[in-house]
Amino acid sequence: MCVNEESNGTAPAVQRPPPATPYHTVQDYISNVNSYKIIESTLREGEQFANSFFDTETKIRIAKALDSFGVDYIELTNPCSSEQSFQDCKAISSLGLKAKILTHVRCHMGDAKRAVEAGVDGVDLVIGTSSYLREYSHGKSMEMIQKTALEVISYLQSQNVEIRFSSEDSFRSDLVDILSLYKTVDRAGVHRVGIADTVGGATPRMTYDVVRTLRGVVSCDIECHFHDDTGCSVAGATHVDTSVLGIGERNGITPLGAFMARMVVTAPEYTKSKYNLKELKALETLVADAVEINIPFNNPVTGFCAFTHKAGIHAKAILANPSTYEILDPEIFGLSRYVSINSRITGWNAVRSRAEQLGLSMTDSQVKEVTAKIKQMADIRPLAIDDTDSILRSFHLELQQ
Amino acid sequence: MCVNEESNGTAPAVQRPPPATPYHTVQDYISNVNSYKIIESTLREGEQFANSFFDTETKIRIAKALDSFGVDYIELTNPCSSEQSFQDCKAISSLGLKAKILTHVRCHMGDAKRAVEAGVDGVDLVIGTSSYLREYSHGKSMEMIQKTALEVISYLQSQNVEIRFSSEDSFRSDLVDILSLYKTVDRAGVHRVGIADTVGGATPRMTYDVVRTLRGVVSCDIECHFHDDTGCSVAGATHVDTSVLGIGERNGITPLGAFMARMVVTAPEYTKSKYNLKELKALETLVADAVEINIPFNNPVTGFCAFTHKAGIHAKAILANPSTYEILDPEIFGLSRYVSINSRITGWNAVRSRAEQLGLSMTDSQVKEVTAKIKQMADIRPLAIDDTDSILRSFHLELQQ
Repeated sequence: MCVNEESNGTAPAVQRPPPATPYHTVQDYISNVNSYKIIESTLREGEQFANSFFDTETKIRIAKALDSFGVDYIELTNPCSSEQSFQDCKAISSLGLKAKILTHVRCHMGDAKRAVEAGVDGVDLVIGTSSYLREYSHGKSMEMIQKTALEVISYLQSQNVEIRFSSEDSFRSDLVDILSLYKTVDRAGVHRVGIADTVGGATPRMTYDVVRTLRGVVSCDIECHFHDDTGCSVAGATHVDTSVLGIGERNGITPLGAFMARMVVTAPEYTKSKYNLKELKALETLVADAVEINIPFNNPVTGFCAFTHKAGIHAKAILANPSTYEILDPEIFGLSRYVSINSRITGWNAVRSRAEQLGLSMTDSQVKEVTAKIKQMADIRPLAIDDTDSILRSFHLELQQ
Repeated sequence: MCVNEESNGTAPAVQRPPPATPYHTVQDYISNVNSYKIIESTLREGEQFANSFFDTETKIRIAKALDSFGVDYIELTNPCSSEQSFQDCKAISSLGLKAKILTHVRCHMGDAKRAVEAGVDGVDLVIGTSSYLREYSHGKSMEMIQKTALEVISYLQSQNVEIRFSSEDSFRSDLVDILSLYKTVDRAGVHRVGIADTVGGATPRMTYDVVRTLRGVVSCDIECHFHDDTGCSVAGATHVDTSVLGIGERNGITPLGAFMARMVVTAPEYTKSKYNLKELKALETLVADAVEINIPFNNPVTGFCAFTHKAGIHAKAILANPSTYEILDPEIFGLSRYVSINSRITGWNAVRSRAEQLGLSMTDSQVKEVTAKIKQMADIRPLAIDDTDSILRSFHLELQQ
């Protein structure tokens, strides 16, 4: 016999209340998830996205929206990229935003001086340290990298700006080389060191291992920059680089929205009190329009199907308690859930709920009967919500006649 | 002074060759990445996607394409969902595909019998074990769950089908409860036990911890099913559930393409020899058309920007050696890379390469001059490839006059 409705066991419901935080996590000694900071790079990494062309006005609108959302830092394109890049950097630095303004430059004295001229609050220095980049990009030895780094850092200190020093392609660099370099710049007094998975191939476990090792070597903050070539760009870290919708070079980096989804689960109080999560959708729409892309159907939080429930067994439980099949409450982001009943995999509990919404009163066995009709129809062709509503209404009408 | 071109250090290029595998991984004792299997669930989980309506013909086309791609298992919707679901399950089971055909059913005798009638090779049993699901969905105690499981398993063994037993919402279930249940079903002789992050909130580290613990408790295979609500659906595991483009309930599960991108890096030989990676794009296009969605701009591997390089510093190195900024070789998937020069963040090495492609011979200082013109123009408005080609051609013409 085939059980077409959801099962009803005979045991009483379990009395033990669900735990306050749904996922049982054991925090380890390096865990810092309750005070992470966002370094928002839509206006730097995002400018490297294939489709990006941000004029000054658009850049300013995006910067203001990011500031209103509550990001800690806004990172801008190197002012040496073009004259307009310099002017835009200057314009955004003088807006008086709450977020600190950073620019991301090569570890050159020339770039550093231009960054200071542009009036930023901080400078993100970067240099390639992998054998690939040392051979095929800048051709410098580790000794030369260290010497230049110390000169540039000393200059920036004299100018009172915040300093981040990062290797590029950190995961394909010699571990001892980069630890030695980070130790040197940490002693020289930088505010943060950065780890970058520039080509997007690190796994979460590699990231954890490198960050844990580095934590024992430097006393400054640690920033992480992850690319999404292999779908692993969201990995729990402390200072994290994001961009809106993840736009950036190639497949981009950690998306702000996905990171917020992750952190609302991992550190709900800090995340909800610090960031204006209800602005996420508007912020994403602003950037998507600016770079002329569609928001992916499966975008975390704001994709059209993120809060849509369809299978009967899911719908039944969601209607009783949304926590059964939702780790994120859509309300937090100013959104709502949708329980679909227009398919052959629906169940009678979902149909009963829809009938109640429509004010059609039926017994459970009548609901089961009309559910069978809906499934039969859905086997034949795709149903829209008004199709199923019609089936419900005409069934209800027949009952009354 | 502002350094507008990429730096040229004076040290000789580093002589040490890059390592054979770019990421240095230390495999641990439970690592099994060189013999993982794919349980492809587009025709089950994917049918729970908001937009899905697969008619029989479409299901058969998708099943054949998945089989040709080389997936190990194809999972189908519960034949109890509707009469057509049963017929489709029967039709696909009798196609004679290389992949094993599974169906995903509730841990009920009725469902199990219907699955066997449909002629599948294996049955994926699932039951909710979290306090949420036990209270709000089926209302069964752990003792009842265990008793029913053993009866259903014993029946399926008598029918000679492969058996997978999974808890639903495993990460919010009591760890001791599920370990005890898995130990019992392992002793009863199931082929696999499954861990499901049904609500999509587990982190990679939680997953690792649970799988490692379970590995010490059962001797059968271990399957993982990850939902993508918080952007963490790709986490290195052994038997992994995927769907094409990740379609499924809410935001879906591990996408087949993202998983392939990950595994081509982690286990290149096994992955390239086993799966027909050049069919990925056609397979994704088939499913995207069937459910009427666009392939996301940032889809791993096949998104339009996955292999586009834009920043000058990246383009220079990519032209010298693609491994500098690519963890995935697009060739493996039958795709090609694109180096964009139409922006203010381009560099003269990228422009020189484009000039060479166009057959326009110039000295380095002439290339730098025309690069400055391109950057100046790109500050004013978005440039298309033919715009920059025109700038190059007219500059070259002027040189010759």
